[in-house]
Amino acid sequence: MKRLGFLAYTGVEELDLVGPWEMATMWNAYAGGPECLVVAQERGTVRCAKGLGIAADHDFSTCPSLDALVVPGGFAAFNEMRNENLVGFVRNNGGEGKNILSVCSGSFILLAAGLLENRRATSHWKVLGRLREAGVSVVEERFVRDGNVWSSGGVSAGVDLMLHFIAETAGAEVACAVQHNAEYYPSRTVYGSAHLGPDMPAYMKRI
Amino acid sequence: MKRLGFLAYTGVEELDLVGPWEMATMWNAYAGGPECLVVAQERGTVRCAKGLGIAADHDFSTCPSLDALVVPGGFAAFNEMRNENLVGFVRNNGGEGKNILSVCSGSFILLAAGLLENRRATSHWKVLGRLREAGVSVVEERFVRDGNVWSSGGVSAGVDLMLHFIAETAGAEVACAVQHNAEYYPSRTVYGSAHLGPDMPAYMKRI
Repeated sequence: MKRLGFLAYTGVEELDLVGPWEMATMWNAYAGGPECLVVAQERGTVRCAKGLGIAADHDFSTCPSLDALVVPGGFAAFNEMRNENLVGFVRNNGGEGKNILSVCSGSFILLAAGLLENRRATSHWKVLGRLREAGVSVVEERFVRDGNVWSSGGVSAGVDLMLHFIAETAGAEVACAVQHNAEYYPSRTVYGSAHLGPDMPAYMKRI
Repeated sequence: MKRLGFLAYTGVEELDLVGPWEMATMWNAYAGGPECLVVAQERGTVRCAKGLGIAADHDFSTCPSLDALVVPGGFAAFNEMRNENLVGFVRNNGGEGKNILSVCSGSFILLAAGLLENRRATSHWKVLGRLREAGVSVVEERFVRDGNVWSSGGVSAGVDLMLHFIAETAGAEVACAVQHNAEYYPSRTVYGSAHLGPDMPAYMKRI
């Protein structure tokens, strides 16, 4: 694995992108993992969902060949589903020998690109019903792999997905080094009981 | 609490900043939390430790009054300890009636600003010994509050610190809304046993 891309677009959710980015770049820094880059339809500052500006250093035409593409979500993903330029870029990066990873509602961009046909996938709990109605075989886990298509639940779940991706593609020892350097041993505190609501995915109810 | 600042500087670790940012901006979006902004010595794109560019929309002279300042870390924090301009900005935001939060080696910038005198604090596991040698009362937890000074372990620990900060200042119901919207119910998978090493903080050994 040589190069990993992170897709940015106006309104992308910050942690959807930067969570997996941190894990992947730790992989690069400490265990020979792939080079990582941010790509958007146009180069320059992309304004995220919560106001953070992130620099896209590559556009679709200048982006070098990728071994894997991370497609983050945010409410804006539902706009980007209709952006044929962006959807086409995702489609071109979802073929054989490539890995495509979605975080949160990024899965709907994969859907628009035709990459979820006959696939099991997941998304943010708010839109699991919508994903199911679109004909996708929804898996109520924090993340799921189906062949070369990897998807996760909302926002923070992309961190777990990337760590799993690293473990599956580079081995548990490498995942250990990444987890340790990022000090990713999260607190187990759960506030309130919103995660136990009737429409919540199965994995939350097992906490 | 009206306004929360996030300090950026060249070489800042990406997730140190964006992890707490996501939690705080979810607080803003869903539960009336403070406005959030990124501040640096100079406005414009700040290049982070792993190559991501982040926009600083305010500099020290134009930054509006803050109720709390988040000081992220990264190896570059040890350079910034000698940057009297930046250290002075942190000192001015660490006084009475304000909250100062450090992530990872950001605690060394608080140290340089004189904000850790007679305080309990923590940092990334790699530099806990160094913090102890500097005379700080090190607490081997994932995060710790001592009065208006809040500090966390490395990189990803800033997410837990910010969620705790929200719970303490706005209540558990608000923290529940933030955690739920960010779908922050992390996987409990731990790869390998690096976290059980002899110099690891006590909290890791309890996992």
